[in-house]
Amino acid sequence: MAYEFKAIRRVEFSETDMAGIVHYSNFFRYMEIAEHGFFRELGYSVVMNHFEPPVGWPRVHAECEYRQPLRFEDEVEIHMLVSEKKSKSLSYIFKFRKLNATIPMDIARGSLTVVCVVKQADGRMAAAHIPKAFADKIDVAPAELLT
Amino acid sequence: MAYEFKAIRRVEFSETDMAGIVHYSNFFRYMEIAEHGFFRELGYSVVMNHFEPPVGWPRVHAECEYRQPLRFEDEVEIHMLVSEKKSKSLSYIFKFRKLNATIPMDIARGSLTVVCVVKQADGRMAAAHIPKAFADKIDVAPAELLT
Amino acid sequence: MAYEFKAIRRVEFSETDMAGIVHYSNFFRYMEIAEHGFFRELGYSVVMNHFEPPVGWPRVHAECEYRQPLRFEDEVEIHMLVSEKKSKSLSYIFKFRKLNATIPMDIARGSLTVVCVVKQADGRMAAAHIPKAFADKIDVAPAELLT
Amino acid sequence: MAYEFKAIRRVEFSETDMAGIVHYSNFFRYMEIAEHGFFRELGYSVVMNHFEPPVGWPRVHAECEYRQPLRFEDEVEIHMLVSEKKSKSLSYIFKFRKLNATIPMDIARGSLTVVCVVKQADGRMAAAHIPKAFADKIDVAPAELLT
Repeated sequence: MAYEFKAIRRVEFSETDMAGIVHYSNFFRYMEIAEHGFFRELGYSVVMNHFEPPVGWPRVHAECEYRQPLRFEDEVEIHMLVSEKKSKSLSYIFKFRKLNATIPMDIARGSLTVVCVVKQADGRMAAAHIPKAFADKIDVAPAELLT
Repeated sequence: MAYEFKAIRRVEFSETDMAGIVHYSNFFRYMEIAEHGFFRELGYSVVMNHFEPPVGWPRVHAECEYRQPLRFEDEVEIHMLVSEKKSKSLSYIFKFRKLNATIPMDIARGSLTVVCVVKQADGRMAAAHIPKAFADKIDVAPAELLT
Repeated sequence: MAYEFKAIRRVEFSETDMAGIVHYSNFFRYMEIAEHGFFRELGYSVVMNHFEPPVGWPRVHAECEYRQPLRFEDEVEIHMLVSEKKSKSLSYIFKFRKLNATIPMDIARGSLTVVCVVKQADGRMAAAHIPKAFADKIDVAPAELLT
Repeated sequence: MAYEFKAIRRVEFSETDMAGIVHYSNFFRYMEIAEHGFFRELGYSVVMNHFEPPVGWPRVHAECEYRQPLRFEDEVEIHMLVSEKKSKSLSYIFKFRKLNATIPMDIARGSLTVVCVVKQADGRMAAAHIPKAFADKIDVAPAELLT
């Protein structure tokens, strides 16, 4: 069972804004990159079309606290940890660290809650149980890592 | 004194993702559009280069709760309200409503805290008092609107 | 019959990059905004799901020549003109003008070719005739406007 | 002397659109990623602030021809080749290949022309000679690779 994933990314020019730093909305794109890497490492894609019915993972809550800016060509580690596992939803926290510093530097802290959904006959989404084969591979991270 | 602003926006194709809905990170871009419209309405730009020293407004906290999806060509109203005003920071909440529905529909709820900063001699940012001329124009919204 | 559309847009903060100007990739998002406005004005959406079979409009060629930069809060007019109409494809040119200048200023010139496609039984896209009801509403712009 | 660079990238969820494929504007972001990797490999950043005066590289022409779609989690190789080297500008072509296919598949072909500029006293950009130390490291790719 797995409860964490680390993605590393170099900041791209198009992700900066005129203030010279990464636009704050891009931290939410970074969070997903770590989440999707976590899914792949478990042998899955966040696009779960092979289940019957197909399963989706819309986001219901997202949050980020920004401590230090990220700049062009910085190397950032996005450390994802599963913070909660319910029958129909998952929550993660994300620790952003800038690696290209004398001492890796705390940059930001994020969180995300996603719900497992299936498409109903009328086209609307309804919350559904996380497919067992997938849920069985996921664990909640130890409390001391979630602080 | 002002405490709110409403921006209206039509969802663009490039803002959707393969799930057929607006990518969740774009709600944070929408929030800024309302904030910057609020600043303009007060006669200012969020890029306050005319102050001496120049003032910037980095985001320190951002949050969004998603209730219903937005789709291509939906018309969304982003209703920004000032929820807190401190000497060096402002907080807002955002109510997202889909207008092209029989009854305007609650889509999402967001919040943002921004800090007033000036660039120091060493190039780093330091929190600073909000310029008085600007602060004097801003009020906190009545409590009943912030629920 | 129609051959042009003008969209106006204010440059958003998230569209700028650390050079202080609109990132060049965003001009291609601006082009689409004008194209989709053109479709809507004719009573259609670029998402033509009501046709049987549903019709899509992938881009096969895109080009932009940049003459002057656009900056935050600039007002830009995107003037789209149909430059070619074939049985299965459309081509447009786009003239970008900055409106908040003493004299509206030529900023950029773009072009786009899109193909009408339907999804085949095997899931792949195949070029298809533009639905007649839609094609009948579209004309090529006079040559003197396309220079 | 160097004339090429290959970057590899996995398609991210936020880069797809409701058609289920990578939004066409993102190919221009991918092009830059390869260009900036090329600069770094030569010991430089596209942000050349250490030159006196500082040098910038605005784009003056961009083009892309799309042959096959890219989808979520596809692995794409962006092969950049220097196609022209002038005293004040560089041109590149880009070959996009999807790697996660039985045989790597041709996806798209792009091109970009960038100009070396310095900021003048009045704040405007003016074309300038490419700094010699940098220019000396760059060669034009052999003709047979540019077809």
